[in-house]
Amino acid sequence: MRAVDLIRKKRDSGEHSREEIAYLVAGYTKGEIPDYQMAAWLMAAWLRGLSHAETIALTEMMLYSGEIVDHFDLPMKKVDKHSTGGIGDKTSLILAPIVAAGGLAVPMISGRGLGHTGGTLDKLESIPGFNTALSLGDFRRVLKECGLSLIGQTSEIAPADKKIYALRDVTSTVENIALICASILSKKLAEGIDALVLDVKTGSGAFMAKEEDAIRLAEIMVDTARRMGKKCVALLTDMDQPLGRMAGHANEVIESIDVLKGKGPADLRELSVELSAWMFFLGERTKSVDEGRALAEEMIASGKALERFRQCIRLQGGDPRIVDDPSLMPAAKHHRDFTSPKSGYITRMRSRDFGVALAILEGGRAKKEDHIDPAVGLEFHRRIGDHVKAGEKLVTIHYNSEARVAEAQKLIEDSFVFGEHEPLMPPMVRQTIGG
Amino acid sequence: MRAVDLIRKKRDSGEHSREEIAYLVAGYTKGEIPDYQMAAWLMAAWLRGLSHAETIALTEMMLYSGEIVDHFDLPMKKVDKHSTGGIGDKTSLILAPIVAAGGLAVPMISGRGLGHTGGTLDKLESIPGFNTALSLGDFRRVLKECGLSLIGQTSEIAPADKKIYALRDVTSTVENIALICASILSKKLAEGIDALVLDVKTGSGAFMAKEEDAIRLAEIMVDTARRMGKKCVALLTDMDQPLGRMAGHANEVIESIDVLKGKGPADLRELSVELSAWMFFLGERTKSVDEGRALAEEMIASGKALERFRQCIRLQGGDPRIVDDPSLMPAAKHHRDFTSPKSGYITRMRSRDFGVALAILEGGRAKKEDHIDPAVGLEFHRRIGDHVKAGEKLVTIHYNSEARVAEAQKLIEDSFVFGEHEPLMPPMVRQTIGG
Repeated sequence: MRAVDLIRKKRDSGEHSREEIAYLVAGYTKGEIPDYQMAAWLMAAWLRGLSHAETIALTEMMLYSGEIVDHFDLPMKKVDKHSTGGIGDKTSLILAPIVAAGGLAVPMISGRGLGHTGGTLDKLESIPGFNTALSLGDFRRVLKECGLSLIGQTSEIAPADKKIYALRDVTSTVENIALICASILSKKLAEGIDALVLDVKTGSGAFMAKEEDAIRLAEIMVDTARRMGKKCVALLTDMDQPLGRMAGHANEVIESIDVLKGKGPADLRELSVELSAWMFFLGERTKSVDEGRALAEEMIASGKALERFRQCIRLQGGDPRIVDDPSLMPAAKHHRDFTSPKSGYITRMRSRDFGVALAILEGGRAKKEDHIDPAVGLEFHRRIGDHVKAGEKLVTIHYNSEARVAEAQKLIEDSFVFGEHEPLMPPMVRQTIGG
Repeated sequence: MRAVDLIRKKRDSGEHSREEIAYLVAGYTKGEIPDYQMAAWLMAAWLRGLSHAETIALTEMMLYSGEIVDHFDLPMKKVDKHSTGGIGDKTSLILAPIVAAGGLAVPMISGRGLGHTGGTLDKLESIPGFNTALSLGDFRRVLKECGLSLIGQTSEIAPADKKIYALRDVTSTVENIALICASILSKKLAEGIDALVLDVKTGSGAFMAKEEDAIRLAEIMVDTARRMGKKCVALLTDMDQPLGRMAGHANEVIESIDVLKGKGPADLRELSVELSAWMFFLGERTKSVDEGRALAEEMIASGKALERFRQCIRLQGGDPRIVDDPSLMPAAKHHRDFTSPKSGYITRMRSRDFGVALAILEGGRAKKEDHIDPAVGLEFHRRIGDHVKAGEKLVTIHYNSEARVAEAQKLIEDSFVFGEHEPLMPPMVRQTIGG
């Protein structure tokens, strides 16, 4: 087998066998197939598409390029959630402690933020001392002790994905359903889980803005995970506006703790409970999703979920006192309010630009190497459908650099769309795929 | 400007500006754009296509990536010919001396053989001592003295093409009209010529087997060359069977000398005269192509063309005695005849396989690094349309390695197609494009 022939085959719309996909993935991971051949193949695959069977094979080969964590000493089911990301999406920080408190194990390997979306690891690292770079051994030990552990991708996990993703990023071959599916699942399934709940975002703040693209992605991910023997369901959820009131890092951690304390914004609490409920159900902890919801609410009300989060922070080297005293978290030096220029209903938000504005304030990354300021953030006072008066506070910008705030503020101002009539509000969970 | 954005643009069927093409070609040549980004762009260009304007811009930028030879001290017009290659295609060795003898200059920079087609440089190097690796300074000196010089691509000539071609070869992005056009013309126009005659081959032994592809390539090359201020015409010529009786290296040199002596096979002589005639006409040496034909015939009959070839061999370090004594050329140790298995008309040949058979005998290259044996070759005794009797000699295989001859012979045997009726014979020059 030769890479040049496989490139030609895909270029000419051929379908690869499992052996051919295996040859490509293993050869590239070992460095036997050079970057330029993989780049040509990725572009051919992007333009010609990958079949269902090819996507499954690609996912498997990328998964098996590395280690799969073995939790042989944990009797309970292992479950996880993956979100395609958005603005203010912090449900991982809430549902992981809920589900762990409810009796399942949540071995969560997460990513960093890039572009307009945030990343769970960056949020956790705003907690003083919190270490996301645990070895797989320490990951397993923390998980055993408190039922959850939250770390970043290690070199042992799906090395093929790490290498292929870096190449896709610089060759304009990112936005392809099959390649995205293989990238997400190869990492998530390496966690050694029994079930996976997918939160596929759609709307103006989502990676997949168009609903039909999000549905296609959700369908192929659910199917691929199931063919690999995992329980899986996808919730297609709203990202037309930020989730919760906070976007940033430290402020999202504080808001997550609020929800774990039975407070916090309704939309964030609703989605966190919904995702937890599906994790309980797929993890066979409850007989129905309804029972799962009740169990999730109970874990919040009893304070058990909050206790698990405190425990996890301590075990991963963080300062657990932040749970009771948010003033120990990093805070921005300045703040500035953006007030409504007119009266009327908020009918739409160009939410992607909130993420871009946050990155301008150094609360996000344009490039992988960019530094992140955990203290800066955006605080949203109003939601789509609210009626506002001219001069009313819409967003508070928490920032450190005077030089950057004007550009960010301009983006935020232009993100709001007003109208005279109350808009139709889609439900938070638009659709359940595979449920 | 960023390469990743240009890749995305072409991926999404966008059309590049001249500035964008310039950025890509210059950036890649200087090493600022890495192989993997160029590979992704090439695949996107292969699949999405390049417009007429993009092809012209690409050709220009590749040409200007290197030096253009300046023949300021030569008063006569400079002309050249390029062939897309085939089996036994040795017209360069014949027409260059004819046209030089007729009063024009032929500064010819040629390539090596690859795959099933031979290369002019390899043929010339079968002449003991002949040096094709002259500096551009020596190239100009030989040209001034005898009116022709035949060398290989130097590092100064179109370095962008050299780098891009090597990448296309290993990323399955070779067979694309626009990329082929830019590759050929960027090298040929760097010779500092006023006019170019293109010999675009079509048929079973050609690189472009399908006539419609060959016509499209011919049209875009003629148009591009003209827009760059060069006179240009393309002859679409027959490559359904080998040109002349000989395929190989030393044997093709000997056959070329035969034609220059007024002998040799009719088809080879006819095409060489025809191409020379167009070179005379485009180089404004004659008022018509007919006059050009007469001048070419005269240069052969008078022995002046042969004398120029002898002179060129001497000036480039070769042994000029081979012109009078072909026994000084390398010869294969063994020969074996393939005789006709049946009686009937030869209706078709799978000529590509003759080239593959020659490569098996080490008379061609599968890979760039392969060694070539100049002595081996194929001698064709019959042509399409001939009526043959069972047991009659069709091909003599001249070879050195007993281990390889069986495989080559099998390919040759399977290349002949026989029938009961005399086939229709297309003319040698099927069409003139831009004439």
